[in-house]
Amino acid sequence: MTTTELLVRRERLLGAGTPLFYQEPINIVRGEGVWLFDADGRRYVDMYNNVPCVGHCHPHVVEAMHRQAGTLNVHSRYLHEGILDYAERLTNLHADALTSAVFTCTGTEANEVAMSMARIATGGRGFICTDAAYHGNSAEVSKLTRAKDTDTEIRAIPYPQRYRPLQDGASESELVELYLAEVRAAIDGFEANGIPLAGMLVCPILANEGLPDIPAGFMPRAAEMVRDAGGLFIADEVQAGFCRTGRWWGYEVTGFVPDIVTMGKPMGNGMPLAGVVGGTELVDAFRQRKRYFNTFASSPLQAAVGMAVLDVIETENLRQNAADVGNYLRGELAKLQVRCEPMGDIRGHGLFIGLEWVSDRAAKIPDRDGAVVFVNRLKDKGFLIGNAGALGNVLKIRPPLVFQKEHANLFLTAFEEIVGEFYGKGS
Amino acid sequence: MTTTELLVRRERLLGAGTPLFYQEPINIVRGEGVWLFDADGRRYVDMYNNVPCVGHCHPHVVEAMHRQAGTLNVHSRYLHEGILDYAERLTNLHADALTSAVFTCTGTEANEVAMSMARIATGGRGFICTDAAYHGNSAEVSKLTRAKDTDTEIRAIPYPQRYRPLQDGASESELVELYLAEVRAAIDGFEANGIPLAGMLVCPILANEGLPDIPAGFMPRAAEMVRDAGGLFIADEVQAGFCRTGRWWGYEVTGFVPDIVTMGKPMGNGMPLAGVVGGTELVDAFRQRKRYFNTFASSPLQAAVGMAVLDVIETENLRQNAADVGNYLRGELAKLQVRCEPMGDIRGHGLFIGLEWVSDRAAKIPDRDGAVVFVNRLKDKGFLIGNAGALGNVLKIRPPLVFQKEHANLFLTAFEEIVGEFYGKGS
Repeated sequence: MTTTELLVRRERLLGAGTPLFYQEPINIVRGEGVWLFDADGRRYVDMYNNVPCVGHCHPHVVEAMHRQAGTLNVHSRYLHEGILDYAERLTNLHADALTSAVFTCTGTEANEVAMSMARIATGGRGFICTDAAYHGNSAEVSKLTRAKDTDTEIRAIPYPQRYRPLQDGASESELVELYLAEVRAAIDGFEANGIPLAGMLVCPILANEGLPDIPAGFMPRAAEMVRDAGGLFIADEVQAGFCRTGRWWGYEVTGFVPDIVTMGKPMGNGMPLAGVVGGTELVDAFRQRKRYFNTFASSPLQAAVGMAVLDVIETENLRQNAADVGNYLRGELAKLQVRCEPMGDIRGHGLFIGLEWVSDRAAKIPDRDGAVVFVNRLKDKGFLIGNAGALGNVLKIRPPLVFQKEHANLFLTAFEEIVGEFYGKGS
Repeated sequence: MTTTELLVRRERLLGAGTPLFYQEPINIVRGEGVWLFDADGRRYVDMYNNVPCVGHCHPHVVEAMHRQAGTLNVHSRYLHEGILDYAERLTNLHADALTSAVFTCTGTEANEVAMSMARIATGGRGFICTDAAYHGNSAEVSKLTRAKDTDTEIRAIPYPQRYRPLQDGASESELVELYLAEVRAAIDGFEANGIPLAGMLVCPILANEGLPDIPAGFMPRAAEMVRDAGGLFIADEVQAGFCRTGRWWGYEVTGFVPDIVTMGKPMGNGMPLAGVVGGTELVDAFRQRKRYFNTFASSPLQAAVGMAVLDVIETENLRQNAADVGNYLRGELAKLQVRCEPMGDIRGHGLFIGLEWVSDRAAKIPDRDGAVVFVNRLKDKGFLIGNAGALGNVLKIRPPLVFQKEHANLFLTAFEEIVGEFYGKGS
């Protein structure tokens, strides 16, 4: 079936407007490690997908899934040791205060649980988020999507950053105070409207916002301010978690301990698996109020697959790999920056890199169209990345954690070639 | 690890109040067909679990999962023929008007999508449900849980039934009119408050309400009334679908064609897989407004597993089996009814049976405690069922669709023995 035939069929069966990547979409039929293969046998270095974090079709994960699916897979209202072993291992990877877990199937569901948990614990309703956030697609959680303060219970602050700061010329410590004042204003706004605060929910590295350099010290100070006002601080680790940043959790990168953490995407390497960890008292109170039950979650299958993912991260030392290869790639991209005018800023942590694409580096004019063209050209050359960020102009590089220096070098060669094609004068 | 040790560990790791079945919970370690096995090697006939609809650990499904997990599992923003083949096969199993699909991971997410789709298509906000419904656990969907009209956009009607009807002595056709008047009142109530109608969302066989005998003709008439008022009629087939009733869909049992159908539980035999089908225009409008994306949904893995489940239902003729064995079991239970005073009513369709448990058959006094004792005694004898319904007093019998007459006979013997133990005089 040709791409055109597939597109027509897809529009009919899944609806026109179903999201699709690339101007000429690709028909992927096989994956292995960092590689994806299309129906014509063309291979691509996958530098986008964080979900298959230990690599596409990792045999250890595939076998764990196969073994458990052939042994038992039922809901969680019977006892099962597997899910307890997984909960124990997972909470042990977190800060000491995070001792109990609630499992779900998707990150959206995890954020639903976290919001409910915070509301139950605090008796509050109001949530603070950033103005370029995405935390999920349910009616409740999507109120946080690029929130415009249209819901009385949601207030968005400008996301903290150093590239296009709230005030030009402000020092990093001044920026911390400026962004904290925004948090303060949100808290005061809720209070003025008689809406008690439930908490603040953010990605600890602001991934959807475009991986900004967050003024150092903002996160722990914001957490303190939210707690002082009676709220809880929730870290959405759906993108940042599981060693993506070279640390186990994004909150280690920005230096704070959340009250509640939500996780998802890479957790099951593609098996629907997500969840929440928090202090046992928080989880108890949530359980007792909600009697939360999720048919497919906390299953033996989720547990076996989740466990296998942790096995691979540890045995293949993928945390260190993410740190090392990420640093290498960022360093090499920095060398190319001088010949690549649109690369206005290079940011990120570990194997999560954002390149701010601009049409004028001094004026920092965002160039979403240019970013899209570059992403499509890279795809043609066999490298899959995406564009994202608050303004859609950030090249998003986020390969499986098994991405190696040799793959980085292939990418850098292609990147340099495209820079030469597009911005040839300088090369 | 002993049951007590597991319970203590579970409370610490998953929170106190995490739902658990049976007064003495069971530690299930293996499943095969209709059988579940605990850690002590005891076996149970599973007569509760609808999720593993083609039987626990069915080799065809396990192999399909294994093959696809080892080949490719990525998100849906690349083209992939598998999900289109599955969408085509699934929509072809539905009424002609239901031509396009949106996939999700859970039934909750499917109902989120359906509500959003109906709101987009109609421009309305208000939803009608029943007063003993459950459609999911998100903030939005759980507004429909045993709704008390506390949300201005939700109105609940008394669920239509013949056992404890709105008016004693009314004929079936009079009951239809009485319950339709409740739908009318809900529509009028929205109108009076300036809330345009989005639709009505019900399980077509009212599973959570306790599988009542729905006055014949209510559903198609209610659908007509809702459409006349500008709303859409949504069938939640999460429990009723995939041949549970001896028909493919619950809406065939109660005789109507919905505008939107949601599906879940049995769809992937335990793999998180759920979805929505509707007319292509409805799905298009939803896609275009929402650009809905669900990380783990519409994946090659979901497609392969969903397809394998359909294969087994068809090749093993499980639709017919559900009809035949269900009829047999209901017939044999009816013979026991004369000696079992608490069995006030026997209801259901196919392999979904509800036994109304009462302390006084003439007065129809619900006996939840008695139902719980009976369920636990059956568990001790090796048969897993549950209790459910609006009043918690309905024995819920809902085995995997591979349940055979021989399993029914084992159950009937145990059932009769317990009736003898508890209500010995009559036997």
